[in-house]
Amino acid sequence: MNFDYFTPTKVVFGKGAEAKTGELVKEQGGHKVLIHYGSGSVVRTGLLDKICHSLEEAGISYVLLGGVVPNPRLSKVREGICLCREEKVDFLLAVGGGSVIDSTKAIGYGLANEGDVWDFYDRKRQAAGCTPLGAVLTIAAAGSEMSDSSVITNEDGWIKRGYSSNYCRCRFAVMDPELTYTLPDYQTQSGCVDIMMHTMERYFNLSDNMELTDGISEALIRTVMKNAIILKQNPSDYNARAEVMWASSLSHNGLTGCGTGGGDWASHQIEHELGGMFDVAHGAGLAAIWGSWARYVYPEHPERFARFAKQIFDLEERADMQELALAGIEKMEDCYRSMGMPTNLKELGIEPTEAQMHEMAEKCCFFGQRTVGVIKKLTAEDVEKIYRMARG
Amino acid sequence: MNFDYFTPTKVVFGKGAEAKTGELVKEQGGHKVLIHYGSGSVVRTGLLDKICHSLEEAGISYVLLGGVVPNPRLSKVREGICLCREEKVDFLLAVGGGSVIDSTKAIGYGLANEGDVWDFYDRKRQAAGCTPLGAVLTIAAAGSEMSDSSVITNEDGWIKRGYSSNYCRCRFAVMDPELTYTLPDYQTQSGCVDIMMHTMERYFNLSDNMELTDGISEALIRTVMKNAIILKQNPSDYNARAEVMWASSLSHNGLTGCGTGGGDWASHQIEHELGGMFDVAHGAGLAAIWGSWARYVYPEHPERFARFAKQIFDLEERADMQELALAGIEKMEDCYRSMGMPTNLKELGIEPTEAQMHEMAEKCCFFGQRTVGVIKKLTAEDVEKIYRMARG
Repeated sequence: MNFDYFTPTKVVFGKGAEAKTGELVKEQGGHKVLIHYGSGSVVRTGLLDKICHSLEEAGISYVLLGGVVPNPRLSKVREGICLCREEKVDFLLAVGGGSVIDSTKAIGYGLANEGDVWDFYDRKRQAAGCTPLGAVLTIAAAGSEMSDSSVITNEDGWIKRGYSSNYCRCRFAVMDPELTYTLPDYQTQSGCVDIMMHTMERYFNLSDNMELTDGISEALIRTVMKNAIILKQNPSDYNARAEVMWASSLSHNGLTGCGTGGGDWASHQIEHELGGMFDVAHGAGLAAIWGSWARYVYPEHPERFARFAKQIFDLEERADMQELALAGIEKMEDCYRSMGMPTNLKELGIEPTEAQMHEMAEKCCFFGQRTVGVIKKLTAEDVEKIYRMARG
Repeated sequence: MNFDYFTPTKVVFGKGAEAKTGELVKEQGGHKVLIHYGSGSVVRTGLLDKICHSLEEAGISYVLLGGVVPNPRLSKVREGICLCREEKVDFLLAVGGGSVIDSTKAIGYGLANEGDVWDFYDRKRQAAGCTPLGAVLTIAAAGSEMSDSSVITNEDGWIKRGYSSNYCRCRFAVMDPELTYTLPDYQTQSGCVDIMMHTMERYFNLSDNMELTDGISEALIRTVMKNAIILKQNPSDYNARAEVMWASSLSHNGLTGCGTGGGDWASHQIEHELGGMFDVAHGAGLAAIWGSWARYVYPEHPERFARFAKQIFDLEERADMQELALAGIEKMEDCYRSMGMPTNLKELGIEPTEAQMHEMAEKCCFFGQRTVGVIKKLTAEDVEKIYRMARG
């Protein structure tokens, strides 16, 4: 399959890398920077001070805007756009994880384009640019630091929507694995699920995959599985944090999708509705949904699930390919359990009503305007069935 | 190990991708283009016409400069710089393989900097920029289309030297696997060796590698080995050509070196002298040298060679790690033989005299100014021994 590959983000990876932030902004020609962040943790750990200091040393002025929450909100994006216009900001710096970076990308779209920024997420029109941005990563999960995508939640109707374009790719990403030591285990594991799922979504597709892409994807999934368990025992294992952090970027920068024709992405779409309505952690939501999705669709393309079972879990060839495919799905759910991740909605801590499941399924398929997934093109009816299967 | 990763090249991969060349140059703001190429094959196949047509359609004017040879020459680079200054060229387009792209990069350095371009290759000073360039790839081998390096041969003394900087990374790379169908088998296989070696040079090092990088590297080496043999039988196998072409880029864009601390590179340095003195095909030269290098250095770090044996050739663990390491080296030489590649200098077609081996070893180590390699830091005396071992 033909493909484009474009990952212009300059990665500066390693211990103490955050000290180079000022220099990196200067290299990009930034004069007035918005430092965008989430909760108080970047304040408490002293990271924000370090970043401010690094900018000051490079002679760059800045304004601060914190308060980004998981499933980042449109209202905060609008606040950021206003502030940046007032302050004549010309470079955006995200200090945080995927939510902060996504919020920063949305601010960048808003600044560089006329009209309402939600239009892009609502698929009303295309952006013609984005104010340049960089990231100092503190959570390994979303891969937003190298990806072309951002996901924003509109509180008006709690609609969670993604928008992708090359314009919003970070100019640089500063990645110091030590910055992720203090993450609570649930968030670490949820991040690891998100990382694996970014590759698994691409892995499950109907095309003849490229062997090289398959090999890279399988190495990535195995590496993250193994290191997630190491981090359960020892959250300050530098090597494990480094493996997971680098995997987070490679998993979503396009590398694991080269030649695959795009991937399935149904689990992400189905989870987005959970995130929009119940505000659950994205990775945990994916773990809770994936098994039900896989059981629902694997008969459509058992070969791919059978390869997954063999390559990821070293399961032996069986006479019945469907049986092997199913065994692989069970192994993956075992893996999620050993990471302390939910494999159904009850374990995720939510019990949606019949009406809510119906509403989420309809929203997911844009009220009949689209199907989701490629292994099986799922209608709202299919999606509703998957929510039911996942109830637990 | 800390690392930087920067691969800004926009890849457009697939059948017919060359038709997008004009559009890509326009996107980069090019007005007057130098089309740089090698032998008549791009003329005979009609590729040059297609490229010219694509530029014309995009309203971009151009001048042509062909005649780049393998182990590209400094004289041609100087000719290119002159021509570009006269013609006020603002964008460089390489149509060919690594030699053409490297020659184009050197022209770019010459245009963007005052003084003699050889200074950079001769390590006298650093470049401060490079005229922007793009590539239409016709040979999968050198990986120059995404790499930061270029290698030029100075006919005055037949000195072959590389110079690396991010300035010379291609803005875009057009990769149509069909363009490589007509390559003679020897060149195809030589290219495959070069691709594997770009990853193997990085793989053999003294640091605790990143697991993810190891996994990716091993997937890449296995993929190229397998598809090289497929291409021996069927040079027009699209999938095999695509796997090899994409591997060529990933092998040398930095991906397989992330967190490894740099790699060994002695085989490349030792081969460069062969290329400079005898003008052999680079990949074939690497195949002819690698086994002797490996036998000479493996006792310094048998663990790494043992892992290579297990992961690449599925060899079983043995009580004696040295024995396993050596078995892996033998397997690799078998692989080269099955590709029709030489495993010593006689098979490569050259029989250097004692004096020539001494001269190459001295040149390789800059007459005592440096050692080469990291698994074992090789002096001129070591290098001379390796040439002797490789004589066959």
